[in-house]
Amino acid sequence: MKEFDTICAIATPIGEGGVAIVRISGEKALDIAAKIFLAKNKQDIKQMQTYTMRYGNVIDLDNNEIVDDVILSYMKGPHSYTGENVVEVNCHGGVVATNRVLNQIVKAGARLAEPGEFTKRAFLNGRIDLSQAEAIMDIIKAKTDLSMKSAMMQSNGSLSKEIAELRKYLLNVLALIEYAVDFTEDDEDVVDDNLIIQIKDGINKTLLRVKNLLKNADEGKIIRDGLNVVIVGKPNVGKSSLLNALLKEKRAIVTDIAGTTRDVIEEYINLDGIPIRITDTAGIRDTEDAVEKIGVQKSKEKIEEADLIILMLDTSREIDNEDKAITDFIKNKKYITLLNKVDLNGKLPEDLAESLDNKIEISAKTGFGLDTLKEEIKKLFFDGKIDSESLIISNTRHKQALYRALENCDIALDRVNANEYLDLISIHITTAMKALGEITGDELEEDLLNKIFSEFCVGK
Amino acid sequence: MKEFDTICAIATPIGEGGVAIVRISGEKALDIAAKIFLAKNKQDIKQMQTYTMRYGNVIDLDNNEIVDDVILSYMKGPHSYTGENVVEVNCHGGVVATNRVLNQIVKAGARLAEPGEFTKRAFLNGRIDLSQAEAIMDIIKAKTDLSMKSAMMQSNGSLSKEIAELRKYLLNVLALIEYAVDFTEDDEDVVDDNLIIQIKDGINKTLLRVKNLLKNADEGKIIRDGLNVVIVGKPNVGKSSLLNALLKEKRAIVTDIAGTTRDVIEEYINLDGIPIRITDTAGIRDTEDAVEKIGVQKSKEKIEEADLIILMLDTSREIDNEDKAITDFIKNKKYITLLNKVDLNGKLPEDLAESLDNKIEISAKTGFGLDTLKEEIKKLFFDGKIDSESLIISNTRHKQALYRALENCDIALDRVNANEYLDLISIHITTAMKALGEITGDELEEDLLNKIFSEFCVGK
Repeated sequence: MKEFDTICAIATPIGEGGVAIVRISGEKALDIAAKIFLAKNKQDIKQMQTYTMRYGNVIDLDNNEIVDDVILSYMKGPHSYTGENVVEVNCHGGVVATNRVLNQIVKAGARLAEPGEFTKRAFLNGRIDLSQAEAIMDIIKAKTDLSMKSAMMQSNGSLSKEIAELRKYLLNVLALIEYAVDFTEDDEDVVDDNLIIQIKDGINKTLLRVKNLLKNADEGKIIRDGLNVVIVGKPNVGKSSLLNALLKEKRAIVTDIAGTTRDVIEEYINLDGIPIRITDTAGIRDTEDAVEKIGVQKSKEKIEEADLIILMLDTSREIDNEDKAITDFIKNKKYITLLNKVDLNGKLPEDLAESLDNKIEISAKTGFGLDTLKEEIKKLFFDGKIDSESLIISNTRHKQALYRALENCDIALDRVNANEYLDLISIHITTAMKALGEITGDELEEDLLNKIFSEFCVGK
Repeated sequence: MKEFDTICAIATPIGEGGVAIVRISGEKALDIAAKIFLAKNKQDIKQMQTYTMRYGNVIDLDNNEIVDDVILSYMKGPHSYTGENVVEVNCHGGVVATNRVLNQIVKAGARLAEPGEFTKRAFLNGRIDLSQAEAIMDIIKAKTDLSMKSAMMQSNGSLSKEIAELRKYLLNVLALIEYAVDFTEDDEDVVDDNLIIQIKDGINKTLLRVKNLLKNADEGKIIRDGLNVVIVGKPNVGKSSLLNALLKEKRAIVTDIAGTTRDVIEEYINLDGIPIRITDTAGIRDTEDAVEKIGVQKSKEKIEEADLIILMLDTSREIDNEDKAITDFIKNKKYITLLNKVDLNGKLPEDLAESLDNKIEISAKTGFGLDTLKEEIKKLFFDGKIDSESLIISNTRHKQALYRALENCDIALDRVNANEYLDLISIHITTAMKALGEITGDELEEDLLNKIFSEFCVGK
């Protein structure tokens, strides 16, 4: 185990709650806690056994005032989250209360932890690999059961195991190449055909499994990060009503005045386990109102970033130039057309009806057609069915690394088939191995490592 | 200890964080946890010692899938928060992760706890009295160090002790009255002067200490709940800029278009330990815009509820009828007049200047005058100095009970002085005692008790 200084942070979400936890990790965790903690039973906590707790007070080092009633738990390294000695102070929830306890711990000699620093230590101490560390963050950020399950699978090491096996295949290929190169140098002869077959076989096996991992990567990303859906339509077609109907609660203000939704409103809905980040926009009409102009600009940006656009048209009114301008604006994106207010017997002009994709009649007000909309979204991105049992690549970083491995294996295979020099081929195999190693963190630059952990939340 | 069913709830704030705690309390807490928990060391947790922890997995009862990696802690009653057996499941933070663990615990037989139900049990099991229970909620909701300190003092039983002593005084007075009544019945004679002196003395002592407690009650309420400050002024005088300057970060949108602040924006600032809830309003001008109309209506309501109004005038422009209308509207409230944009060499018309209270020149943009504003607020509510050491009544319910005790002691004293029948006087002393008992919960209707705890947060 490597040795670091002792760090601390609030590990629970910030806000009002019954209980909060301040976590201390490092060689001196217990010594630091002992300075500011007075056990109700007066015993010195330095004698605490691992995996036991004590009730007492946190005391202000400066004036001996009681800061809070707390319960202290101790997990001696290496059997702790970070692999180091860990003390967790279970104190009253609430922003001020928790920060007061944290301040005393800092005064007693711990350093405030950076985002993800606890998990980074778990990684550096060899408790978990990088893909597992990233999965922990995915668990915390999971928006649905499905994304949580997928992250749990990764956190338990399923991906790590698969990557380790692939790296073993490639290492074996490298060994075969080396043997073959040695053999040819000795003998000035051609390489044994059998050896070539084994090399090809190793690369092929790897290729197959990498491809298999990549097969559901797009769906994986959606399961993890959510599908980015933007609702567009001119003011007052019922965008906010749709969002509310999907959310089943009043969140966006709905009035009968055009241009109400000044800010972009984002919400998550759960569609059979797929987190859908749904954005209601201010519309994209021309406007002279400076505040609204900002909204329109934001809407256009959101449309650019969207995975899917929901275009809303109000069939109870004439389709006008504004509707057509919006329709033109999104034509090249993936979109669903919602014909709203069908409860008012609305109908679309035939020429427009023909030119639009994926039309669904709905009534945002009565809820009619919403299920069809949900099914359509599922069909567009998951062929209607969602896989929850197999290992799914959900992290873009992993996906990119797998693609690099795939590419290099492909090139290597081509070169073997073309009977090129084997030691040139080994470069590609090495690169593929390295790419795979980046997923588990076996091979990764420190800068990149720091970047990954800096995106974690504080206290984890 | 009374016996209840076993309850559970998420005890940490909801949101993304490293760790969350699901709390189980009741006779069967450990049995329920045992059903869904599989220890890494395979040992049965039913044998767990109190104040120890175990590492393992929460398992889905239906399909044996791993739901989460957790650490389980056990506090056997009566040495726990509720006084019952308590199990805390320390699981991954995050909304979905935490709820999955909670769901398993419910499936295993625990009931979802109502708001404040853990603390209510602590009260019903005699671990804490009612004023301490309320203090725990105040700790969680504390907005500043000062409000936290005051709540900690109450939570440690300072108020309970004081109330218990006052009730003892009054009980003594009642005993003296009873003795005196018995004496007069026997003898048909006047009451012993010495006895009367003792009765008066007892009531007087109580009165003095109740008055002392009430002395800082208004300040106490402000320290606990915050001072409700509303900024008013016509559109574009710089209300949002002032709020931003006080918050030292951009939160409210500031543009140069009148009527931007459509919704009422509330923020807390910390003024030397006093939490100030500061509300930026949409202005109160006449408007035809339906959305803005709602804002104006909200502003007027906020002004009615305010402890203090901050009236903003833009000295760089002509003071117009709209300014004057606002000035008239708030005239009968406590207010401070801010003369904004003095950096632009603005000046107020003399007649208006004379009629306005507490004028301070500021520049919300440069920050000039903000310190004067803060000092003025402190002067208006705390005579400039804030007491942090003595026991302060901060809860309106306590204050009202103390006033009832005060009133009844006053009447009793008057009647003793007027030589009225002593048994009539004892009614008032009993009422005063009862009022004091309501503070600690020794005397309180169940309905009221339920109401108090229902205002707690879930999980506490």
